[in-house]
Amino acid sequence: MTVTDLLVRADTLVVTWPDTTSTSFPTIWLRDNCPSGLHPQTHERLLDLLALEASPVLLSAQLDGHTVALRYEDDHVSHLPVALLSAHRPGQPAADAGVIAPKLWRADITAAGIPRAPAAPILVDDQHLKSWMENLAAFGLTIVDHLEDRVSAGIDVAQRIGFLRETNFGTTFDVINKPDPNNLAYTSVALPLHTDLPNQEVPPGYQFLHCLANEATGGGSLFADGFTMAEDLREDDPEAFRLLCEVPIPFRFHDRDADIAVHEPVITLDRAGDVIEIRYNAHIAGVFDMPAEIMPAYYRAYRAYMAKTRDPKYRLTLKLKAGEMVVFDNRRVLHGREAFDPSSGFRQLRGCYVDRGEFTSRLRLLCRDIGAVDPA
Amino acid sequence: MTVTDLLVRADTLVVTWPDTTSTSFPTIWLRDNCPSGLHPQTHERLLDLLALEASPVLLSAQLDGHTVALRYEDDHVSHLPVALLSAHRPGQPAADAGVIAPKLWRADITAAGIPRAPAAPILVDDQHLKSWMENLAAFGLTIVDHLEDRVSAGIDVAQRIGFLRETNFGTTFDVINKPDPNNLAYTSVALPLHTDLPNQEVPPGYQFLHCLANEATGGGSLFADGFTMAEDLREDDPEAFRLLCEVPIPFRFHDRDADIAVHEPVITLDRAGDVIEIRYNAHIAGVFDMPAEIMPAYYRAYRAYMAKTRDPKYRLTLKLKAGEMVVFDNRRVLHGREAFDPSSGFRQLRGCYVDRGEFTSRLRLLCRDIGAVDPA
Repeated sequence: MTVTDLLVRADTLVVTWPDTTSTSFPTIWLRDNCPSGLHPQTHERLLDLLALEASPVLLSAQLDGHTVALRYEDDHVSHLPVALLSAHRPGQPAADAGVIAPKLWRADITAAGIPRAPAAPILVDDQHLKSWMENLAAFGLTIVDHLEDRVSAGIDVAQRIGFLRETNFGTTFDVINKPDPNNLAYTSVALPLHTDLPNQEVPPGYQFLHCLANEATGGGSLFADGFTMAEDLREDDPEAFRLLCEVPIPFRFHDRDADIAVHEPVITLDRAGDVIEIRYNAHIAGVFDMPAEIMPAYYRAYRAYMAKTRDPKYRLTLKLKAGEMVVFDNRRVLHGREAFDPSSGFRQLRGCYVDRGEFTSRLRLLCRDIGAVDPA
Repeated sequence: MTVTDLLVRADTLVVTWPDTTSTSFPTIWLRDNCPSGLHPQTHERLLDLLALEASPVLLSAQLDGHTVALRYEDDHVSHLPVALLSAHRPGQPAADAGVIAPKLWRADITAAGIPRAPAAPILVDDQHLKSWMENLAAFGLTIVDHLEDRVSAGIDVAQRIGFLRETNFGTTFDVINKPDPNNLAYTSVALPLHTDLPNQEVPPGYQFLHCLANEATGGGSLFADGFTMAEDLREDDPEAFRLLCEVPIPFRFHDRDADIAVHEPVITLDRAGDVIEIRYNAHIAGVFDMPAEIMPAYYRAYRAYMAKTRDPKYRLTLKLKAGEMVVFDNRRVLHGREAFDPSSGFRQLRGCYVDRGEFTSRLRLLCRDIGAVDPA
């Protein structure tokens, strides 16, 4: 990477690149990012920004190999690598290997279209780990198969990404029917499509459900891409979409040991308007408390999204076998299950979560260590 | 609690209270919250909202002791407790014992004004636990003293609230100077005021720093109320305040084992415009990447907040003694330390975090179990 022109103004350096585009770097930014201001070991910033003048003055700029030498009015000289300037153009956030664009899907993807990978190579090979994680980030749903027949086999795969997320249900959980359930998951009734723990400030990121036994009649696992349903609602009914994005609703779970509640919208957008999170769980939605004037319109909007969760167009059914594990983005993909007959056979899933932060951190490290080129 | 009048419209029940105010309950809300729709054990909702008509019609309402009997056009009858109607008035979110208004402070509060409580009663008595937590929520900073002289004594206090937050630095950490530091905290240099881990999607909530030894020269602990500085900036320089609320900046920490990065603003507001979070850490702020046009104004705004962090008007210095622990809201109160001379004596702090979700859950449970009246 090189530059073809450097234009010096007191408050700005204008760099022209070989492709003839140019980028303006305010002088205060150049001083703030002078490599002399970093701690040699930790690479954290040591520069005291307040020690600079409010408006430092750039006097000259000179290309010296792969570095630009900048001289300021106070005689300070910065040697800024061209690579740094190129990677950090104001207004253009740097490339981030942790960010992968979602590939939206509907039921027509079929079970065969869901990425599938065997457990053993993920456990020992970083290249396989990375490919599987990239698929998981893109589709929000994958199946890992050929797991060993022990309760911690799925946990081992999860921990290849990072540490487990603890919640009020522990760091791991068994989805079996229990005699004194504090949660419908621990019964044998059907569970409509939902996301887990939308009552948390940050709901758990990726969910791992390792099937240890599934011999009961019924008990199929259901999935739907919450982002697809949101985007289709945006298209079909923009007013309903807007209400689901803008009106926070209460979510609350409480039992003897916890009382965890938030007000958040069903659909969360990022600053660019892209859908980045779905919170949907009819069972632990609290008592709606928006003003009465907008309540009927809100119920209409909420029911419109709910209707999509029942539409076979979006819904995928998988009958998990022992030794298979579904892994999905709990903040995107809704999951549920068909009712099962507990007298007809044993059904046990072992679950845990790993949060988005650990996931993106691992992806960045894998790309750094083995390169960002997709091996597929 | 009773009602003085019930007015029935097809789409709304209007309840008049003894204080002569009245509340409108849309009919769809009444059906949605009919007690017949709850699971008897888990209290989660079983009602299928889509099984209802889009616009159910209310025919009659009758007060029957502490219950209102409602009859609809489809012959369904709901028995809604008056207490439920009173507690959940549309447009008026229900009281939440987990929410405590912040009491802002400046340096003139002095160390003597910071709430202080001995560890032993917090460990065994829920009333003391609750009082201490309410002070912590209000001031964002407390001192717990008379801790036992063992490394886990502070952790025991933290776990009275809830489980510890795990991060890439582990679930507990020792603040001592280390030979090969991955973080400035693990050196002996001065640490300017900052919040921990603003590079996380949700930075750690409450931070616990138990002083096991502080015999070195220097090493005083610094604190400032980040909410106060933000509110003063809002008053002094509204444009700077606006930029710090609206422009996300990159925060990133990376070492061999982690690469955790977000774009978030320095000041986060809730929907009502109240400050609910400060992210401020000059050392791990990434390379600013907003458009060049707003960059000089942003630097000006950022420096204005930074200048407040240096202003003695806001800064409190505590020289912690062995057996004392500071506990503070890491998403509100900035902390730092003076440089110390590691050759003059040993300095060791043992730290951990408990997140806001566990904190508010515990407060709600304590208020439920021992009543919400403040014993002070």
